[in-house]
Amino acid sequence: MLAETLAAIRPADPGALADARAHQDRLTKPRGSLGALEEVSIRLAGAAGVSPPPMPEPAALAIFAADHGVHARGVSPWPQEVTVQMVANFLAGGAVANAFAAQAGASVTVVDVGVAADLPDAPGLIKRKIAYGTADLSAGPAMTVDQAVRGLEAGIQVARDLVDSGARCLITGDMGIANTTASAALVSAFTGRDPAEVTGRGTGIDDETYELKVGIVRQAMRSHALADVASSPSEALRALAAVGGFEHAAIAGFILAGAAARVPVILDGVISGAAALVAAALDLAVTDHCVAGHRSAEPGHGAALDHLGLRPIMDLELRLGEGTGGLLALPTVCAAVRVLHEVATFDSAGVTEKPV
Amino acid sequence: MLAETLAAIRPADPGALADARAHQDRLTKPRGSLGALEEVSIRLAGAAGVSPPPMPEPAALAIFAADHGVHARGVSPWPQEVTVQMVANFLAGGAVANAFAAQAGASVTVVDVGVAADLPDAPGLIKRKIAYGTADLSAGPAMTVDQAVRGLEAGIQVARDLVDSGARCLITGDMGIANTTASAALVSAFTGRDPAEVTGRGTGIDDETYELKVGIVRQAMRSHALADVASSPSEALRALAAVGGFEHAAIAGFILAGAAARVPVILDGVISGAAALVAAALDLAVTDHCVAGHRSAEPGHGAALDHLGLRPIMDLELRLGEGTGGLLALPTVCAAVRVLHEVATFDSAGVTEKPV
Repeated sequence: MLAETLAAIRPADPGALADARAHQDRLTKPRGSLGALEEVSIRLAGAAGVSPPPMPEPAALAIFAADHGVHARGVSPWPQEVTVQMVANFLAGGAVANAFAAQAGASVTVVDVGVAADLPDAPGLIKRKIAYGTADLSAGPAMTVDQAVRGLEAGIQVARDLVDSGARCLITGDMGIANTTASAALVSAFTGRDPAEVTGRGTGIDDETYELKVGIVRQAMRSHALADVASSPSEALRALAAVGGFEHAAIAGFILAGAAARVPVILDGVISGAAALVAAALDLAVTDHCVAGHRSAEPGHGAALDHLGLRPIMDLELRLGEGTGGLLALPTVCAAVRVLHEVATFDSAGVTEKPV
Repeated sequence: MLAETLAAIRPADPGALADARAHQDRLTKPRGSLGALEEVSIRLAGAAGVSPPPMPEPAALAIFAADHGVHARGVSPWPQEVTVQMVANFLAGGAVANAFAAQAGASVTVVDVGVAADLPDAPGLIKRKIAYGTADLSAGPAMTVDQAVRGLEAGIQVARDLVDSGARCLITGDMGIANTTASAALVSAFTGRDPAEVTGRGTGIDDETYELKVGIVRQAMRSHALADVASSPSEALRALAAVGGFEHAAIAGFILAGAAARVPVILDGVISGAAALVAAALDLAVTDHCVAGHRSAEPGHGAALDHLGLRPIMDLELRLGEGTGGLLALPTVCAAVRVLHEVATFDSAGVTEKPV
C-alpha cells in the first residue's frame, strides 16, 4: 500500500501552474495585490493538475492520537492519561478542534494509532492501534520499522476513505502527550538543526524540564545515528522508527495519500511539520500538495517549514495541535481558490487595466 | 449624530475582560496555547461588556467608494474611472471582495460617498455622495470640515442601518483610485512618522511616481501644518478635512458607530487604518472595539496599527483593499469567540489539569 501510494504521487503540473498564474494577472485587481494568496491558488492548481483547481471543500480533519514511551522520562508535566481523556473530549465535541471545525465546516475523525489504553467504540473514532504507545526513544528505537510502515499505512487508509467519502481537502491533526519531544527529534534529524534550536516548551514546561528535553533529543540523535537521514527513503523510515510516534507515522501516510489522490493537505503545527519531513523524504513531490496552515510557537515548526519551503497562512503563536492551526487556515485557502473561480477579468467586467 | 455617537462609546468592560480571561484558563487546552486568539476573544468580551461575547455573525462589509482630487497630480497609474468601474464590479459580484464575502458568509454593501460620476441605482448600492471627489490635497484642503462631518455621519448611518438589520460584526472596505496617497498623509499626520516611512506603492507604481507621491505627502504635511493633530478632536477633524478622502471620513464614522453599538469592527488595510486613526483621535476607546483584520504590504498600515496598538490577524502581503483583508480574518475572529461558547472546561470534560 505504501509503495503503491508513493508510485501515484506526481509533482506540480507546470501547465496548470502557468495557467493559474496567467489567470491571476487577468483578474480585476492590481497584479500581485493578493500577496501570498496568489501563490496558494497557483500551487493548488499545480497540485490538482488543472486551473482553476477544484474548491477544497468539503474538508476533513483527522486527529491521530498516540502515546509515547519517552513520557516516562518526565518530558511533560501532563499525565499520560490526558491523551485518552482528550480523545473522549474530541468525540464528545468539547475540544478547541471541534469548535474550529464547526466554524470552518470541516468534519472531524479521530484515529487511535497508539493510545496506551483500550478505547470504547464511538461514532467518529477509527481504531488502528499499532501498539499501546511507543517504546522510550531514549532507551532504544521507539518502534520497529514494520510498525512504522503499519503506521504510515493506517494514515494512508484513513485518507483514502475520507477522499472516497467526498473530502476534497485533508487537514492533519494530532493528540499525544509528549509528542513534541518526538517531533523535535524528527525535526533535528531531517533538517540537521541542533536539538536546542528545534526543541520547544510544548504545552508549557519549566526550565529544568526543558533542559532535560533538549538533552534527551540530543542523546537520541547520537545513539540512533540520525545525522543524515533525509538522504534516502530507507534512512527516513529508520529515523521515523527510531524517534517518531505512531501519530507521526500515520500523519506522514495521510499526507502521502492526499498527494497521491491530488487532494490538498493543510498541515497543522510542529507534529504535522515533523511528519511532513518524513513524507517529503519518502517523496519530495509531496510538498507540492501541502499548504502550511500556520506557524506555531514551537521553534521546531518554523525550522520544518523552512526546510519544506512552505510559507504558513496563519502566524498567531498557537501551540495547541489537534489540527487547530490547519482548521483556521481552511477558509483562507478556500478564499484563495475561489478567486480563480469567481472573480471577473478586466475584459469581462469592463474595467480599464493599468497601462503596463 | 456625531456627538451622540461619540457620547455612546464606552471603553472595554474590566469585569468582562477578567471573566473571559479566567474562562480561557479553565478550558481543555494548555493555558495560553491559543496564542493571539485568546487575546482576540478577551478583547471582544471587553468590548461587548459580557463574557462570552455574542458571536460576531452575521457580518456585514461596507465598501465606501470615493474619488480624490490629488489623482490629477499623477500619483496613480490607474485612470480615475476605475473607481466607478469597480463599483459596478462589486455590484455585479465580480470583485475579489465578493468572492471573499461569499466564502466568509458576509453581506456586501457599497456606499458612494464621493465618486466623481453619477451612479445608476442598483441593489446593494447606497448613495450618500458628499461631492464628486475631493479637492486636490496638494493645492488646498481636500474637503471642508463640514464635508468631513457629513462623511463621518454617512458612515455612522450605514453602520446603524446594518446593525439594525441584524449585523453583529462590521467590516470596513474602500475603493478609490489614489486613496493610498491620502492615507499616507493621514498616517503621517496622526502617527508623526516621516512621509517616506509611511508612503507605499499602492497598487503598484514606478520609482519616479513614488518620489512624486512622497513629495506630495511631505508638502501637504507642511502646508496644512499637520504636525500634532492627534492631540484634540478639532485638530483631528481639521486633518481629516485637509488631506483625507470621503471614504476615510465615512469609514471613521462607521467605526465609531460600531463601537457605540458595541458591535465589533474588523478593520481592513491602510485606508481603514488611516480612518481608524481619525476615529481614535475622536475617542480613543474606539480601539477597544476594533480588530485588525490584517497587515497590508503598505508601510503606512503597519505604522497605523502600531500606533493603535492593534495586532493583525492575517499577514499575507495583501494590498488590494475593498475589505478583502478584513473578510479573510472574519472566520478566525468567529473561531476565537466560539471557543468561549463551546469548548469544555477541565471539570466538565473530566480532563486532568496540568499540575501548577
